[in-house]
Amino acid sequence: MSFYDQLKFDANGLIPAIVQEQKTGRVLMMAWMNRASLQKTLDTGKTHFWSRSRQKFWMKGESSGHVQVIKDIAFDCDGDTLLVQVEQTGAACHEGYQSCFFRSVQASISDPSFRITEERLESPEQIYGKK
Amino acid sequence: MSFYDQLKFDANGLIPAIVQEQKTGRVLMMAWMNRASLQKTLDTGKTHFWSRSRQKFWMKGESSGHVQVIKDIAFDCDGDTLLVQVEQTGAACHEGYQSCFFRSVQASISDPSFRITEERLESPEQIYGKK
Repeated sequence: MSFYDQLKFDANGLIPAIVQEQKTGRVLMMAWMNRASLQKTLDTGKTHFWSRSRQKFWMKGESSGHVQVIKDIAFDCDGDTLLVQVEQTGAACHEGYQSCFFRSVQASISDPSFRITEERLESPEQIYGKK
Repeated sequence: MSFYDQLKFDANGLIPAIVQEQKTGRVLMMAWMNRASLQKTLDTGKTHFWSRSRQKFWMKGESSGHVQVIKDIAFDCDGDTLLVQVEQTGAACHEGYQSCFFRSVQASISDPSFRITEERLESPEQIYGKK
């Protein structure tokens, strides 16, 4: 049975893909795939997504060189989320952090502020050049 | 600054929450929170979600006892995804697996089938009783 038959794309034809660095277990980012970008991902061995804001395909690292090489693609019990294990080149986050999840909620519940939890590896200018 | 100001809930008032077991790094599941369920999560220290299919709140473990105790809540650069680190009691998946991501795509690209990648810990009947 094809695993595509197990998947449920949403009303816009999209499925969320969690990207995890296989070596460290660090969750790097979450982005959306449609069926074509998932096929492209399988076909090339590098992550491809669908940008909801720009309404276009994008390959992770196409501008930055920070590509993600596929190690494993899992899907959940409901078939509506993907978990993609990768080997990440450079920082995953466009803001220069290893992970997009570089901020955490502080302990205070009444006024939950946040803190930055990791060091920035590069500035966006270093990654993408000045704009 | 409150971290709520950093978050972008979607048109339905929801934000996806990736749940990761802090101890092992295993990604356990993905579910949806609205602001009230996120507040409830912060308030109680246990994960609470919003069920899109049932249109109601649910606490992870309310039937199964397989609760998730909050260790950390991070959010991504775009503010549209949460990463929740937890201490998981029992199997996270309602199908009795440790993780909902218990199936992975096989290597073949032309006909991507899948395999089960972990052992089932309990049957759904053991978790929820016979229905």
